[in-house]
Amino acid sequence: MKIAILSPPWIAIPPKGYGGIEKVVADLTENLVQMGHQVMLFATGDSRTKANLRYEFEKALGNNLFLKNNIYIYLKHLHKFFKIIRQEKFDIIHNHVGYVAYYFLDLQNIPFIHTLHGAFYKNLKAPSGFIKEKIDTLLRFKHHPYISISNNQRMDFPQLNYIKTIYNGINPDDFKPIIKKKNYLAWIGRITYNKGVDIAIKVAAKAGIPLKIAAFIDKGDLEYFNNKIKPLIKETKTELIGEIKDKKVKNQFLGEAIATLFPIRWHEPFGIVMIESMACGTPVVAFNKGSVPEVIEDKKTGFIVEKEDQMVAALKDISKIDPLYCYQYATTNFSTQKMTKDYLEAYQIVINKFKNNEK
Amino acid sequence: MKIAILSPPWIAIPPKGYGGIEKVVADLTENLVQMGHQVMLFATGDSRTKANLRYEFEKALGNNLFLKNNIYIYLKHLHKFFKIIRQEKFDIIHNHVGYVAYYFLDLQNIPFIHTLHGAFYKNLKAPSGFIKEKIDTLLRFKHHPYISISNNQRMDFPQLNYIKTIYNGINPDDFKPIIKKKNYLAWIGRITYNKGVDIAIKVAAKAGIPLKIAAFIDKGDLEYFNNKIKPLIKETKTELIGEIKDKKVKNQFLGEAIATLFPIRWHEPFGIVMIESMACGTPVVAFNKGSVPEVIEDKKTGFIVEKEDQMVAALKDISKIDPLYCYQYATTNFSTQKMTKDYLEAYQIVINKFKNNEK
Repeated sequence: MKIAILSPPWIAIPPKGYGGIEKVVADLTENLVQMGHQVMLFATGDSRTKANLRYEFEKALGNNLFLKNNIYIYLKHLHKFFKIIRQEKFDIIHNHVGYVAYYFLDLQNIPFIHTLHGAFYKNLKAPSGFIKEKIDTLLRFKHHPYISISNNQRMDFPQLNYIKTIYNGINPDDFKPIIKKKNYLAWIGRITYNKGVDIAIKVAAKAGIPLKIAAFIDKGDLEYFNNKIKPLIKETKTELIGEIKDKKVKNQFLGEAIATLFPIRWHEPFGIVMIESMACGTPVVAFNKGSVPEVIEDKKTGFIVEKEDQMVAALKDISKIDPLYCYQYATTNFSTQKMTKDYLEAYQIVINKFKNNEK
Repeated sequence: MKIAILSPPWIAIPPKGYGGIEKVVADLTENLVQMGHQVMLFATGDSRTKANLRYEFEKALGNNLFLKNNIYIYLKHLHKFFKIIRQEKFDIIHNHVGYVAYYFLDLQNIPFIHTLHGAFYKNLKAPSGFIKEKIDTLLRFKHHPYISISNNQRMDFPQLNYIKTIYNGINPDDFKPIIKKKNYLAWIGRITYNKGVDIAIKVAAKAGIPLKIAAFIDKGDLEYFNNKIKPLIKETKTELIGEIKDKKVKNQFLGEAIATLFPIRWHEPFGIVMIESMACGTPVVAFNKGSVPEVIEDKKTGFIVEKEDQMVAALKDISKIDPLYCYQYATTNFSTQKMTKDYLEAYQIVINKFKNNEK
């Protein structure tokens, strides 16, 4: 199959640190190439891939919320991509760039599919910008073929033309479970209100277990970090380490923890941190929101709770969780191989529908 | 000829008050229809036209600089337009929307032409947003066919593929020259640093002649107006009247003035106010910038000066200017009929080039 994968210009492929979308793009692309498909990856010039790499921007622009409001960046990136699409024949375009690309995809004749990476439900608090317009876009193009990354992601807009739910995956080769734990809790992710790092700090303090935070701080979130999180970190003597860019370091960081805390405030559409943690043999204690009940097996690979105090309480039972079961569960149900196979099936469904509509 | 005219979504056609671009669009569209061409005008639902009106937005969105930074407005407007373009066959698309549309136009197969309505030279001060990106866009698409609205507009970027300079026009039927003057000077336009309304106030004060300002104030310019202009107006007892929406009222406002002041700080790409003033029989005293020497005949339809003091001095000679000559000069050289004829020639040039490239 000849596949064009459209990635955003913010983070190079594969991502060295933070980058959920880019991780999916990287794994999917390499697996497709390995299976013998002809793949064009449209990303940034500093990406590394076995696919045919094409790009507009030499270097990734950085995951900067302010840049994301500059229309011209999208226009340049997408214009170059669609110039290529007009010159070469592809069987399918797989869009990971998001909503701006929909308007262009709708005006051309190659079958395409969107993966919905974000959260777009109606009462989403503190969205990263243009949420109303993004939802308008989804509804305008509700006939487009969509992949949801959890069933929960569909909640407020079930009327879109969903082809499948395909969970994000990890490569089992990248992880080994760590049985021997050290006395700390882990939190990893982007520092932002919705991810609840402040709740994690409070929970750890109440449980009397040290917390280590591996954080990515976007420029757009800097004010929130300085005003709300920094004082809490100081007060509780929480250990703040930077963004982890090395796979082995991440395996150790997550694997040696007693548990990973996932006290989200929003409906997380997938939450790759949860499967990474389980693949390191570390249970996840999470709030019952978004994809959480689809990703964690309650009482077997972690605990699904409703409130802060329940999270503190759950930590008392954490030793009942089997690290090896966590590893097995994550690598079986959420592997990049399974994800790739599912995407190929989705591509074929879309291509067949497209051919039938053309007739 | 089957012509698609693409207008911005900010102001309905024809404009009731402020709206230089929309005035050109309105006059051109009606003239083309009258000449028997099949014209589709893509604007907003509250527009009035004899052409086939199509639109995305029911109502004009308002000329609001903040709205203009919302990528999704452009995307919706352009998406609907290009859906129509894909369904119906046009000979040419005439783009008045600006730079965002270039990226879409470049990805389709109908001949098109851009009219450059704005100023985009390198040292432009206080531009209205994304000036660097707009210039990037021009250079990226320098092979596109362009209409400049003055020769001066081309100054810093002569390398674009200009087809013609076509001056904006007025409809002679809309104007009559007023010979009998009242004791005041006129200033008309959008309140913004580049238009130099503060200079006009100072000049009038020094000359000892009352000034009347007919102003459009964009929300984005409100701070400038409140901080810089309002105090000056108070101090000098300048008369501030609102935006003039009625043609006859405007004819009277401009026509009864001794002179219209045009003390611009930027290189005005055209400046329709100058020809309107002359068509009302009122000379224009302007700074020698931008299109000014192409539009005013120095010492015959006004005075072209370099500095504030020269503008004060020129007002002493203003009675030497013949109002009827001003009227004649403006309606002969800058009529919408001439403008329409020139555009039709430009369309034909572009269509012929396109056909030759296809062979």
